[in-house]
Amino acid sequence: MKVAKFGGTSLANAQQMQKVCSIVLADPDRKIVVVSAPGKRYSGDTKVTDLLIACANTYWEKGQAGEELQAVVSRYDEIVQELNLPKQVTEQIASDLQERLFTRERCTKERFMDRMKAAGEDHCAKIVAHYLQSLGKRAEYVHPGNAGMIVSDEPGNAQILPDSYAKLRELRNREGILVFPGFFGYSIDGEVVTFSRGGSDITGSIVAAAIEADLYENFTDVDSVYAVNPNLVANPYQIEEITYREMRELSYAGFSVFHEEALVPAFRAGIPVCIKNTNNPMAPGTRIVSERKITSKPVAGIAGDAGFCSIYLSKYLMNREIGFGRRLLQILEAEGLSYEHTPSGIDNISVILREDQLDPVLEHKLIHRIQEELKVDEVTIVHKLALVMIVGEGMRSSVGTTARATTALAKKKINIEMINQGSSEVSIMFGVQAKDVDDAVVALYQEFF
Amino acid sequence: MKVAKFGGTSLANAQQMQKVCSIVLADPDRKIVVVSAPGKRYSGDTKVTDLLIACANTYWEKGQAGEELQAVVSRYDEIVQELNLPKQVTEQIASDLQERLFTRERCTKERFMDRMKAAGEDHCAKIVAHYLQSLGKRAEYVHPGNAGMIVSDEPGNAQILPDSYAKLRELRNREGILVFPGFFGYSIDGEVVTFSRGGSDITGSIVAAAIEADLYENFTDVDSVYAVNPNLVANPYQIEEITYREMRELSYAGFSVFHEEALVPAFRAGIPVCIKNTNNPMAPGTRIVSERKITSKPVAGIAGDAGFCSIYLSKYLMNREIGFGRRLLQILEAEGLSYEHTPSGIDNISVILREDQLDPVLEHKLIHRIQEELKVDEVTIVHKLALVMIVGEGMRSSVGTTARATTALAKKKINIEMINQGSSEVSIMFGVQAKDVDDAVVALYQEFF
Repeated sequence: MKVAKFGGTSLANAQQMQKVCSIVLADPDRKIVVVSAPGKRYSGDTKVTDLLIACANTYWEKGQAGEELQAVVSRYDEIVQELNLPKQVTEQIASDLQERLFTRERCTKERFMDRMKAAGEDHCAKIVAHYLQSLGKRAEYVHPGNAGMIVSDEPGNAQILPDSYAKLRELRNREGILVFPGFFGYSIDGEVVTFSRGGSDITGSIVAAAIEADLYENFTDVDSVYAVNPNLVANPYQIEEITYREMRELSYAGFSVFHEEALVPAFRAGIPVCIKNTNNPMAPGTRIVSERKITSKPVAGIAGDAGFCSIYLSKYLMNREIGFGRRLLQILEAEGLSYEHTPSGIDNISVILREDQLDPVLEHKLIHRIQEELKVDEVTIVHKLALVMIVGEGMRSSVGTTARATTALAKKKINIEMINQGSSEVSIMFGVQAKDVDDAVVALYQEFF
Repeated sequence: MKVAKFGGTSLANAQQMQKVCSIVLADPDRKIVVVSAPGKRYSGDTKVTDLLIACANTYWEKGQAGEELQAVVSRYDEIVQELNLPKQVTEQIASDLQERLFTRERCTKERFMDRMKAAGEDHCAKIVAHYLQSLGKRAEYVHPGNAGMIVSDEPGNAQILPDSYAKLRELRNREGILVFPGFFGYSIDGEVVTFSRGGSDITGSIVAAAIEADLYENFTDVDSVYAVNPNLVANPYQIEEITYREMRELSYAGFSVFHEEALVPAFRAGIPVCIKNTNNPMAPGTRIVSERKITSKPVAGIAGDAGFCSIYLSKYLMNREIGFGRRLLQILEAEGLSYEHTPSGIDNISVILREDQLDPVLEHKLIHRIQEELKVDEVTIVHKLALVMIVGEGMRSSVGTTARATTALAKKKINIEMINQGSSEVSIMFGVQAKDVDDAVVALYQEFF
């Protein structure tokens, strides 16, 4: 039994929806189909979700949004017509949207926005179910609330409630193909609440975990995950198999194939994930698994991300001061800062954090607190750093990976500001200056691929 | 104005004391002489301080210690006779020791031990002063209490009180050569309190800082600090100049030339330190300074130390959990553990700590707490690690140091378990298996020297 999730570009118009349905029908194991809202049909087009947000904002302010509402209905109507579905389908969509808009009088704005945004996936799921039925297949739209997708009442950031899994598991026993709208669930009080943006991946992952799927297929518009950003290297190496850990570390440092949180339910349940291309479904895609056979390549992928800075502290005999590190982290926490890494020498420590968290006022306050409370000899903030990661389960058993990487960087005259290699050896992180990040990624790719 | 401190082997017998005095007299800037207690005259000999400890222990238990006391007095008497000093000098020493022993009835054992141990330096200073006077020089023994060496009342671990510096500064105004006993000061209540063992270096450093010496000379029995442990490499490179930071990092990882805490007062006051050899005073020695000119060698020294272990934790999306690191450090602190470094990946972190702090019971408790309180996916402890450091201010401006180091280790098939390179770049730390530590140090030495 498989869960197949399709992203926005895979459902952008009738033709794409037909591709989706033929993919679903090609494999009888594809039991549950999770859909996003229709995405862009062409570069410069607007996603249905964005049309819905515009409609909701206008209506919230003005109490009417004729034009914006029409834009949404038209998008669906075009699809309905091209799929030769009865016009009642469009009428139902229009009437449902009206009903959602009318709730403005009796709810908060964020609740209203969530309800409107969720309509994109909800209607898309209904259309796909109708279309499958029109082909003579047994298929049904699944109402997430009835099916058990019960979530915390945090608009725009819903979290699945642990008890939901048992109820969702009953989907296994339903007949036919089940079309499940992504991106939202229901609170215990029956209110629509959305996941964070891109959250259809989360829905798919939760459903796959709940029904203990053999595979969670995530259909998108690329043939596979690449070992390096394809904007930097032409025809990069396609990853066939990668572990959750590797995927997670690459996502962190700039890979954006997959919604990060989305992997968690599948990871915890040990459900393999396959990233596939709707437009080229015969391509093997990239499998994300718990454990993989180590190939001759020690490195799975290379990624880089700018936008970091480093707070450097030194204090003579810092190392002897019990609680120093903890007090430093406590100051950061109190100032609402989250940090990434803390490489250290003997009497010095650096804290790497995302630069966008700081502004000159906070920076000044932070330096002052560190000086006053920790009595350091020196504290400075270094800006414009980038982190470059080489990631691979194979590095653990391969002597010399670091030597190859550092030599490749040295040959390109790229200075390594910082190295952080955990004892796991699934990744090695280099800090370089932001201006060097692309060169560093390319140099490392050329060394290992 | 210079402070010259002489260690135990430099004062082990009359001949050595004569060398010391001729060194002092050779430079009129050598105003203050800080002395240790007489050390070993030959391999297998016993230091005066150890004779005093034996004497004190016996007397504390039995109320008498004739033989042990005689051993101490004999050592001094031999020196006094060979230096042709009047026998009253020995008599005064014997009578002072008797007085110290008699205080057993009215004090705690640790106070008693401190008083007895301090006698070693105290009498040595008196003899040196006598001898300089016998040569017709203006010289005097300085009583630390009178001079202002006022310390916290922590027997065996005295800390200088901040107000002491102003009083000690007045030593500048005294005439002649001042002979100052190392290793102890006086509490505010007038009790003798010793520094931690090896603490004559501390005395010298404090006095040098207080009088704002141009140089703090530390005379010992080696020509210089070596760039690597001379037990591992024959005729190792002699370091001419090194910064406090470099010295500190090397001391941490196994260099034991200098008492670590001792550098602090000199460092804070910016007083340069020179390590010299009493038996070869014309050799330039090693200067420890705040800043040094960077030579063609990026690396100043290489050291390695076994006896570490690593606690490895992983948890999916750990990185997003605000306060995770702080809570981990808080658990360690609550269990009385001090840690060295915390290298990290994205969803994993390792804590490196000295292995001797753990036992199976504590280890079990720690793992349990980490599992329960931090809800990690995995926690394991890896034993028998060693840390190898390459240290050098020059690394900051030298691209490729890490590449050279990691390549040198890879060539010797030494697996790098961990790398921690702070943004200061004054040091790079490699974690290797304990069995590989000596090979790693030698491989790195051969690469950089």
